[in-house]
Amino acid sequence: MNIIDYGRYDHVRPLRWTGEALDLLDQRVLPFDVTYLACRSSDAVAEAIRNLVVRGAPAIGISAAWGVVLAARAVQAASGPEAAARLEPALQRLNAARPTAVNLAWALARMRASLATAGTDWLQVLEREAAAIEAGDLAANRAMGHLGAALVATGSGVLTHCNTGSLATAGFGTALGVIRAGVAEGRIGRVFATETRPWNQGARLTVWELQQDGIDATLIADSAAAHLMQTGQVQWVIVGADRICANGDTANKIGTCQLAIVAKHHGVKFMVVAPASTVDMDTADGSRIDIEERDPAELLSARGMRTVAEGVRAWNPVFDITPHGLIDAIVTERGVVERPDATRMRVFSES
Amino acid sequence: MNIIDYGRYDHVRPLRWTGEALDLLDQRVLPFDVTYLACRSSDAVAEAIRNLVVRGAPAIGISAAWGVVLAARAVQAASGPEAAARLEPALQRLNAARPTAVNLAWALARMRASLATAGTDWLQVLEREAAAIEAGDLAANRAMGHLGAALVATGSGVLTHCNTGSLATAGFGTALGVIRAGVAEGRIGRVFATETRPWNQGARLTVWELQQDGIDATLIADSAAAHLMQTGQVQWVIVGADRICANGDTANKIGTCQLAIVAKHHGVKFMVVAPASTVDMDTADGSRIDIEERDPAELLSARGMRTVAEGVRAWNPVFDITPHGLIDAIVTERGVVERPDATRMRVFSES
Repeated sequence: MNIIDYGRYDHVRPLRWTGEALDLLDQRVLPFDVTYLACRSSDAVAEAIRNLVVRGAPAIGISAAWGVVLAARAVQAASGPEAAARLEPALQRLNAARPTAVNLAWALARMRASLATAGTDWLQVLEREAAAIEAGDLAANRAMGHLGAALVATGSGVLTHCNTGSLATAGFGTALGVIRAGVAEGRIGRVFATETRPWNQGARLTVWELQQDGIDATLIADSAAAHLMQTGQVQWVIVGADRICANGDTANKIGTCQLAIVAKHHGVKFMVVAPASTVDMDTADGSRIDIEERDPAELLSARGMRTVAEGVRAWNPVFDITPHGLIDAIVTERGVVERPDATRMRVFSES
Repeated sequence: MNIIDYGRYDHVRPLRWTGEALDLLDQRVLPFDVTYLACRSSDAVAEAIRNLVVRGAPAIGISAAWGVVLAARAVQAASGPEAAARLEPALQRLNAARPTAVNLAWALARMRASLATAGTDWLQVLEREAAAIEAGDLAANRAMGHLGAALVATGSGVLTHCNTGSLATAGFGTALGVIRAGVAEGRIGRVFATETRPWNQGARLTVWELQQDGIDATLIADSAAAHLMQTGQVQWVIVGADRICANGDTANKIGTCQLAIVAKHHGVKFMVVAPASTVDMDTADGSRIDIEERDPAELLSARGMRTVAEGVRAWNPVFDITPHGLIDAIVTERGVVERPDATRMRVFSES
């Protein structure tokens, strides 16, 4: 493995633990205001997750872990197990903040597990565990970046969807980490990003984040992807995941499935990049996943102004399921699963 | 053919000839302001076409025809052919206002042809021809509505893209005319409309226009179409066309091709609805069509406010090509061509 300095392409951080509070970069007002919101309680963290101050499955999980540390400071207990019982209501509220991201439950499970064997120093154990989750995510992203970029032929154009970057993780990003690594390694020649309606994560966050690192990206309408492929401008679509099932079916931002179908039609390759914690071997396939629907108002206004006639209804599912047969590679920090199916995904049962 | 009163579902008009001016409903400010812009010269009409005051291929053609009448009033000539020569510069400017819509060239060709045999009453001939183009479009739309609706099984859900309604035509609409007819005939149970980025014709125009006629439509993000189909909510996608080639390949609003690919993947049927004047038998296939690209700024701001970081680039193609193999039916006022290809499209050579 070549040692490549990715640091030049990695300047943005969505959260920072100050020792007293979790400061969250308020992603609702990017790219125009770069403001950190200080969360001093687990409920403040839960609310920030619910209100999309912080978003992206890994960043949500890390935030929730720090949320547990904040909850712990308000609790008296003589041992880890005793603390665990008292913290459970706060953990439940954190877990309920977003329904689809499996990383949230995974991070909380790690925090619970660390308490199970902790003694009187259980508070320090929790802090170390939250820090380890955060550091592990950053390391995983750099590993995934290198693994994913290796699949991309030199000179390729790539298209990404939503924001899977530093903003969505501890840093560097998942799908956007592969793009960062691909640019750093000279493999990726051109980057396109979808707007990603209705919350415009691509338009507001992805192109801004890449700009901070000096990576030139071109924004397109979500509906322009087929024409982009028809005209031969991209060889890979690279996306993240909110949950990957035991057969490789992948829940991700609404529009992902559409891109996968259109990519297959044009012979463009499709890569899913996510930490192994996103893989949920207890969910057999995509039909078992409840798809979160958010407020239709997200489709009816922009920056606080109504954009659609009064009285109009909207339907606003925010995730969809990409069947595994449309996916060429799933990349985690553990390695690459090509043409994923239930058999090939079994590597995730061996831990 | 049953006689069904479609009038209940047909209240909106995008243009009106006053005898002195062409009043155009300013579609840039709908649905919040319902304002007509009075065009008193052919250049004012050309500018209104270029600036999207009026849009939709048929409405553009009709507007250009009235634009010729306005140009004619400023010209002295003893005969039709003499007038034709003097009007040619104005016709060229009208023709250049939008590059993709074939109806624009078609309407201007009809105006030119009417002059070829006209005598001293050439000005009246032009006025009658413009009125005939407008009336013919409305009649064609109602015929198409009935023909297209007959393909849809009772109780179906349908998805449409962009605005192909009264606002895009003399009235009633093409694809939206089929939806109006399908609702009037009790065949269509549920209507979905895409936002249609970047100009939001669906969000601003289609759902508003249907609301005026008491038709309940649900707005979705462009990227939610695959999930809509995955969940079995629509049986047909019904769209318009800006140009239909001799083999059935269809140029239409960006995103159309994507919907056709996704529909095919899910076994959802795909219908293209357009007046026969949209069929261009001189263009063999979609590869011969230049795709108009508009100002990237359309992707970078909303209602006059910047929505994307400064310095970001965007790519803004506004049409794409749907290959004929993805189309189940092309509906014109002359009839239905199922599974169009170069052979079946030959009916349009027989006039």
